[in-house]
Amino acid sequence: MGQKIQKYYIGVDIGGTKIVIALIDINGNVLFKKILSTELNLNKNVVIRNISEIIDEIKIIYKDINIIGIGIGSAGIVLYNKGIIKFSPNIGWRDFYIVSQLQKISKMRVVLDNDANAAAWGIFYLKYKSKYNNMLCVTLGTGVGGGFILNGKMFRGIDGTAGEIGHMTYIPDGLECPCGNKGCLERYVGKYGLNMLIDRHLKEEAQKSNLAKKSLLLDYKKENVIVDPKLLEAAAEKGDELALKIWIEFGEILGTAFATILNLLNLEAIHITGGIAHAQKFFEKALVDTIKRRAFSVPAETVKLIFEEKKQDMGVIGAGLLLEEL
Amino acid sequence: MGQKIQKYYIGVDIGGTKIVIALIDINGNVLFKKILSTELNLNKNVVIRNISEIIDEIKIIYKDINIIGIGIGSAGIVLYNKGIIKFSPNIGWRDFYIVSQLQKISKMRVVLDNDANAAAWGIFYLKYKSKYNNMLCVTLGTGVGGGFILNGKMFRGIDGTAGEIGHMTYIPDGLECPCGNKGCLERYVGKYGLNMLIDRHLKEEAQKSNLAKKSLLLDYKKENVIVDPKLLEAAAEKGDELALKIWIEFGEILGTAFATILNLLNLEAIHITGGIAHAQKFFEKALVDTIKRRAFSVPAETVKLIFEEKKQDMGVIGAGLLLEEL
Repeated sequence: MGQKIQKYYIGVDIGGTKIVIALIDINGNVLFKKILSTELNLNKNVVIRNISEIIDEIKIIYKDINIIGIGIGSAGIVLYNKGIIKFSPNIGWRDFYIVSQLQKISKMRVVLDNDANAAAWGIFYLKYKSKYNNMLCVTLGTGVGGGFILNGKMFRGIDGTAGEIGHMTYIPDGLECPCGNKGCLERYVGKYGLNMLIDRHLKEEAQKSNLAKKSLLLDYKKENVIVDPKLLEAAAEKGDELALKIWIEFGEILGTAFATILNLLNLEAIHITGGIAHAQKFFEKALVDTIKRRAFSVPAETVKLIFEEKKQDMGVIGAGLLLEEL
Repeated sequence: MGQKIQKYYIGVDIGGTKIVIALIDINGNVLFKKILSTELNLNKNVVIRNISEIIDEIKIIYKDINIIGIGIGSAGIVLYNKGIIKFSPNIGWRDFYIVSQLQKISKMRVVLDNDANAAAWGIFYLKYKSKYNNMLCVTLGTGVGGGFILNGKMFRGIDGTAGEIGHMTYIPDGLECPCGNKGCLERYVGKYGLNMLIDRHLKEEAQKSNLAKKSLLLDYKKENVIVDPKLLEAAAEKGDELALKIWIEFGEILGTAFATILNLLNLEAIHITGGIAHAQKFFEKALVDTIKRRAFSVPAETVKLIFEEKKQDMGVIGAGLLLEEL
């Protein structure tokens, strides 16, 4: 009596190629983890059955602990309030009523959010909730994902689709985006965007200077290597001047988008993680300078930029911790 | 006993050319109103004294009613949490501790916000609070002001500067803005922006078609008339093809910015008021089409666009109603 019972959570992280299912505790420790692979047009009933089997396994192994429920983070368009994965482009699901189905089988509380929000919530909950009330968590990878914490809570908007910072319009008549828009930020700072920047710089510089000819990037392109952020970072690390220039432009583009977000929302912090974030030292100054030049002085001076390596299993941990939110 | 006592509020609306002080009730009715004119470098102590005198007058005339406090909406950069007008460009004030000063003299509760937030709050509180929880209120006038209501509350960010939608970057290497940024939305859809659009269209069309030669706008420009939204609206009303084209581009620009906001925040409604909003019928279709084309389908289908004529005294009413917020 009077003893505080430790709480545990089942997290389910549904990505394009795999589903991670884990048992976690309130500090984000992973006690148990299993991975299912996914494929195109994977049958919904099969998925529900497979997830349920693993949940049953967890319940048997950990029969004496207090499991609060199941939190799901899923890629694609997720209707948070309705518990539906509306569209999952990589798997091909449409209108997957995953919450009601898992609830029926597991007899547990089930919540669902998109994967970017789940990861953002996990980062906030584990490390920043006593520090900040208003922050944006950005994942810079192949795409650009984001999640807003406003007034200390995950902010999802009315249907649950808020936080799509990769699909802010950066250039109104810019590059076509698969989302249907033109000039989305993601086209300029995602993996695709970096390669586009590299191609453009190589072309421009080839005409006016020796930078391109001396650049490692030209060698990669000649060998038809797709330059990923790691390779661009490695080139910069070696002092490749063109690579350094490209990282600066990358910082300026991201800074322009952040300045808009800060003028709109006057956030305390922006947390940056993901593959590209690792190259922080090459673009941080350009990012900060651009924010100072473009945003109003008060929000520009207030905001803290936090760069952090991606924590292993953050997706599934954040998904489980969604249950601590409401 | 058991009788509900009616509440009243003193609103103070500080603009660039005048200060409006009013007594209002909870339904936004104005019972008493006085206007003070402002001038550059107006002495802060003089302002405090003048406002206090009017407040005393109100207290004497309405001595038997329940006045909750004083709500101030001010132009310029306002630090909501600290009760300071940090900078008021039109009057020249810096670091005006207006809340603590008025509190000391009036012995009443005093709150302060910027004028766009005060107006947004008034609109929301009087008409939409039982309908929407997440909305943006936009005033399209000389500039572009905005205020967000998120989760049923005014959203101000950490310092109180949120909602500056006029200073989202629309074109990264676009027109210089007095705020220090380049390509701010306000430069394209404010009064200045409309004139820039007119000049550009006249120039472009002059080379390729007869539209410009036939346009009323060319006559205005020849006579050095600065075309304000009303004049552009009147030209469109007369069927002037160039004017109609310009309104369409105006709708597309605004729609591009709204699409970004909707992808970020998935709002239920955007309320549009101010001088330019009156020309709704000439730009609404382009605005809606652009949102549908650029934003994700869920937020684009959810959002309601509400056009409304500016309510008289909304600034001072919203300022007073700020006291009903917290």
